[in-house]
Amino acid sequence: MAVTLDALPRLKSALGRVRPVDPGWRHRAEVKLANLTKPPNSLGRLEWIAARLCAIQETLSPRAAPRWIVVFAADHGVTAEGVSAYPSAVTAQMVGNFLRGGAAINALARAATADVWVVDVGVAGDVGVAGDIDVTGSASAGSDASFRSRRIRPGTRNIAEGPAMSNDELAAAISAGFEMADAAATEGVAVLACGDMGIGNTTAASAITAALARASAVEVTGRGTGIDEPAFRRKIDVVTRALRVNRPGREPLEVLRTVGGLEIAAIVGAYLGAAEHRMAIVGDGFIAGAAALVAAEMCPSFLDYWFAGHQSCEPGHAVQLRVLRQQPLLQLEMRLGEGTGAALAMHLLSAAAAVINDMATFDSAGVSRRRDITEPEAAEA
Amino acid sequence: MAVTLDALPRLKSALGRVRPVDPGWRHRAEVKLANLTKPPNSLGRLEWIAARLCAIQETLSPRAAPRWIVVFAADHGVTAEGVSAYPSAVTAQMVGNFLRGGAAINALARAATADVWVVDVGVAGDVGVAGDIDVTGSASAGSDASFRSRRIRPGTRNIAEGPAMSNDELAAAISAGFEMADAAATEGVAVLACGDMGIGNTTAASAITAALARASAVEVTGRGTGIDEPAFRRKIDVVTRALRVNRPGREPLEVLRTVGGLEIAAIVGAYLGAAEHRMAIVGDGFIAGAAALVAAEMCPSFLDYWFAGHQSCEPGHAVQLRVLRQQPLLQLEMRLGEGTGAALAMHLLSAAAAVINDMATFDSAGVSRRRDITEPEAAEA
Repeated sequence: MAVTLDALPRLKSALGRVRPVDPGWRHRAEVKLANLTKPPNSLGRLEWIAARLCAIQETLSPRAAPRWIVVFAADHGVTAEGVSAYPSAVTAQMVGNFLRGGAAINALARAATADVWVVDVGVAGDVGVAGDIDVTGSASAGSDASFRSRRIRPGTRNIAEGPAMSNDELAAAISAGFEMADAAATEGVAVLACGDMGIGNTTAASAITAALARASAVEVTGRGTGIDEPAFRRKIDVVTRALRVNRPGREPLEVLRTVGGLEIAAIVGAYLGAAEHRMAIVGDGFIAGAAALVAAEMCPSFLDYWFAGHQSCEPGHAVQLRVLRQQPLLQLEMRLGEGTGAALAMHLLSAAAAVINDMATFDSAGVSRRRDITEPEAAEA
Repeated sequence: MAVTLDALPRLKSALGRVRPVDPGWRHRAEVKLANLTKPPNSLGRLEWIAARLCAIQETLSPRAAPRWIVVFAADHGVTAEGVSAYPSAVTAQMVGNFLRGGAAINALARAATADVWVVDVGVAGDVGVAGDIDVTGSASAGSDASFRSRRIRPGTRNIAEGPAMSNDELAAAISAGFEMADAAATEGVAVLACGDMGIGNTTAASAITAALARASAVEVTGRGTGIDEPAFRRKIDVVTRALRVNRPGREPLEVLRTVGGLEIAAIVGAYLGAAEHRMAIVGDGFIAGAAALVAAEMCPSFLDYWFAGHQSCEPGHAVQLRVLRQQPLLQLEMRLGEGTGAALAMHLLSAAAAVINDMATFDSAGVSRRRDITEPEAAEA
């Protein structure tokens, strides 16, 4: 039996509480921006970001910090089909790498002054959490990442053969996401991003995207971590089989349950929880994009809180962004996940907040306003 | 008589000393990047930036700080033709705003942890430097910008009627730029950007671009700070007249002297000085882009040091980038100048340096490498 919202009370209540942002705040922000010492709209998308932050936070002095990047990690039974260039063991190994601070997301989060959380919602192997890692749930300054173990099962089942997870497993994964959004809200987080780690998860994201974007497997399947031609052909076939075997339909929760992943489901929960708490949410790449598709399908107002951080080279990400009608902030030919694209885009949110918070007005700075010139200016010295 | 390099000894020697970067360093950087815990090339242009930084600095541990944004300010006699939406007085007023920390570049430089320098190379009005501004030339933590007065003349002459400046004035403006690059080198600056302030300067930049890119006035002229339709038509006519009256030819220094601006000439000097000192240089918008065209025309190796920071909405900027064969790092529909686009792009240089400096290798992190999969992985639990 397909999962129903009644089995997911927290999700159900969040869907009722995510409110569209008030366009009045955006308008007031635009008025404020127009009085700052620069030609109108000359900061382009930075002004658009600033106005959106104002509307999200219902203020004309928006914050872009504190910020968290929550990386959800899980394995995928579909790796048995040979769809990834890396063995599944890498998921657990990379969790260890996150916790020791050696991964790309650690380097980029430090550069973005964002805290990194790693949540195991379904890793198959031993993540080797050592004694020096803070597993109590409180972010500590000295550690490179904080960790929570919320393992639901050791990876999804193989989506080429049947559903990825049960109703209960889906509910638990979504709840793990809400839990992190709630923790972020308690800490006063203003900007939240989610990242992913899971060998095989581009296959699941392709299947979700095909189902929800009404696209073919060929359109939404890419080379992930960099597979060769035979593996790429196999991957397209696996996505096709997953959709044929599971017949997920177009109901987003059922798509997520049957052809999704535990980390993708957790991101859906974190996204909707963050929107409920009125945080700005920065999207990442193709995996987080699949979660954004699911969230937006269930709750269109979610997109009022979500920024398309970057566009990955995975072809399915362009399909997602087209369906979501979002233009990415960055296009840097990245395809790593982990939240790395979001970490880079966070700089733009800080910059936008700095502009609207810190710039002088024409009046305060004694700078002349523009005129409507119809005549040449009198000749000067 | 057209200006010759013999009248510009510092420029002449710099042109001989800017060396192409050694591709061997770039290759070694790519090898280092390939061993870090991520799929090969999965950080896209960030890896490209990192490898370029390595080649510029001849190291595998590149720095992206300290960094300076040097804003050169000057007026333009061509404003007498009615080509701007703002009166010329705004140039001096904005210099005051920079020095009090109220302009967009101040907000964005703080967000990028870059020091701002403001150099008056030809402002027409009183810049109102107050007692609390550090005019000694040393950047101090408490002030929002440091200031140098190197005023050559109160704005250029009207390029629609004759040359913008004399040979001596051109030499002095270029020297002011070299002086700032030398000062930056003394302070160990790793990344330099130049910004501009000068009402009327998009007209000069359009004329330079038309001359050096062999393009028509219509192709390279935009609405600058936001002029109305009659002013826009007048501006195209003014660019056309400037090229007809001055007949600058295609010799970059003569183009710069006859239809350029004092701040644009100073940026040329700062750019070439920074390349000579092996700094990474971050390009800004259309005005700094005109300086990059001039610098690259005189010294193709300059481009080994220069990053196209962003693409402005000014149509002539796309023409410049096409001629320079550079793809911008950011496209955010900005058109402000001041160094604002460069300030945003500096974040990407920091992020790239963080990746190559701070990430673990597959070996150090105990993460399995990719395999060439030809067979599906053995089924997992």
